[in-house]
Amino acid sequence: AIKTLAVRGAPAIGVAAAYAIAILAKAVKTSGSSVFFKKLDGIIKNIISARPTAVNLFWAADKMKAVAVRNRKKSVSAIKNILLNEAKKIQQEDELMCDKIGIFGSKLIKSNDAILTHCNAGLLATAGSGTALSAIYKAKKQKKKIKVYADETRPLLQGARLTAWELRKKGIDVTLICDNTAASLIKSGKINKILVGADRIAKNGDFANKIGTYSLAVLAKVHKIPFYVLAPSSTFDFNIKTGKEISIEQRPADEVRKIKNNYISPKNVKVYNPAFDVTQACLVTAFVTEKGIFKKPYKDTLSSLRATAR
Amino acid sequence: AIKTLAVRGAPAIGVAAAYAIAILAKAVKTSGSSVFFKKLDGIIKNIISARPTAVNLFWAADKMKAVAVRNRKKSVSAIKNILLNEAKKIQQEDELMCDKIGIFGSKLIKSNDAILTHCNAGLLATAGSGTALSAIYKAKKQKKKIKVYADETRPLLQGARLTAWELRKKGIDVTLICDNTAASLIKSGKINKILVGADRIAKNGDFANKIGTYSLAVLAKVHKIPFYVLAPSSTFDFNIKTGKEISIEQRPADEVRKIKNNYISPKNVKVYNPAFDVTQACLVTAFVTEKGIFKKPYKDTLSSLRATAR
Repeated sequence: AIKTLAVRGAPAIGVAAAYAIAILAKAVKTSGSSVFFKKLDGIIKNIISARPTAVNLFWAADKMKAVAVRNRKKSVSAIKNILLNEAKKIQQEDELMCDKIGIFGSKLIKSNDAILTHCNAGLLATAGSGTALSAIYKAKKQKKKIKVYADETRPLLQGARLTAWELRKKGIDVTLICDNTAASLIKSGKINKILVGADRIAKNGDFANKIGTYSLAVLAKVHKIPFYVLAPSSTFDFNIKTGKEISIEQRPADEVRKIKNNYISPKNVKVYNPAFDVTQACLVTAFVTEKGIFKKPYKDTLSSLRATAR
Repeated sequence: AIKTLAVRGAPAIGVAAAYAIAILAKAVKTSGSSVFFKKLDGIIKNIISARPTAVNLFWAADKMKAVAVRNRKKSVSAIKNILLNEAKKIQQEDELMCDKIGIFGSKLIKSNDAILTHCNAGLLATAGSGTALSAIYKAKKQKKKIKVYADETRPLLQGARLTAWELRKKGIDVTLICDNTAASLIKSGKINKILVGADRIAKNGDFANKIGTYSLAVLAKVHKIPFYVLAPSSTFDFNIKTGKEISIEQRPADEVRKIKNNYISPKNVKVYNPAFDVTQACLVTAFVTEKGIFKKPYKDTLSSLRATAR
């Protein structure tokens, strides 16, 4: 499910990975601790190989491994239950994080804002109310009048399929645009802030998010509108110094060549299809996490986040 | 055909409009000059209402009208022949213009260049070898080794359907990308120039081209790579001072909501679907026309083009 993007969105991937590990561990047929831990290592290795960019996957797997190791003296059957409880805890924490991100993020939204978002950083990307979209949902509850433009987000159209869908369900005024239309909308003055999620954030604040995000960050800078990144602390990877260390997943060519199983291009044309791009920290106006709003200089502010993050 | 974009590309629209006027004029059943001219006015009015942005449509219609008026003393049947010949002349001139644009444009291309292009400014957009792509075809004939990245160009996918197709037919090394992927490719240093066509160019050099062009121009500026606009002199509209006067066509929402007749979004979601955007002249490194290469200051250089243009 993670590989085919049936489950996508960094926080949702983390939660799904935790449950996957718990379920696969439960199915291990042994009462011997050393055999169980060997199998568990294999399970975790398999799960974390699903996708390379979203750090929440590795974060969740680390948490699952750690809780098992901490309880290694217990019976295999007890450890299986502990793993399931840990997965549930990760899910509940994610719901809570979404809520907190929404509360902090909504402080950045004013009535009559027109907000641009990219890909899907909402209900369908998390176990809770989302990251970027959570802020929008909170602002709506606070009776702020807002208008959202959703990039369709090629190739897999998460904006058209997911964001437009969930914003409408939530009663938000949403307009769908092609990705290439964002620039002239921004230029026209119709957008006054951009809110996106993230898949991995380096120690210095460089971050990876869905392909197309970098372009929006540049345009926000050029047109002097704020550009906010909303993500839980589990999306921060303090093991890497800058965005250059983020490995970017290359996806199959047919994701671009075909839409709903119909070719929209010559069948064998070469394709370049990275799932993400990296945006440098200097283009980010602020990061919003469940711990608060973090502004420049990120070198200092994000390190305070680190102390509590993991 | 022009309305549904079966014929698209500013120069091809001009040629098709000329032939449409000739064919419809031929079908007028009268030998009386005043009736004929009244009908001809109606025909031209109808043809020029097909699309609002590409100025070549109005340019071609003006030429057709003018040749008829110049010959108004002749018989209706003679004028019909003159109109057909004028359409043929417009087509032949377009072929020649493509060739010349290609020759001038190829001077800007070096071996080992990696060129990004948007939409389709090729064989399928003109009566000849294209505008931006003509330069690439000439460079190929000059044995320059080049690599082209083609933006797929949502919503109607002219890059995927047309540009990728014709570049492959011509033996050019082409890689298809989603529009939102251009920014990170440019950032990575993999692109060293951008070549696009134009639908209308104002007196000061501001120009309209397929939606998404403006974003590329900004990214070229930020990453210090040249951004070239290739178009025949018939694409210049010296009646308008700046890009602000260019009327931008709004296209149907279903062009975004559906691909190949399948919905890719909620059926009734609001859509913003302009066919073009406007890029300011300061972002253009040079204009390439059939008369040569025009650099800044455009106020001076383009006025020399005006003297010979119409």
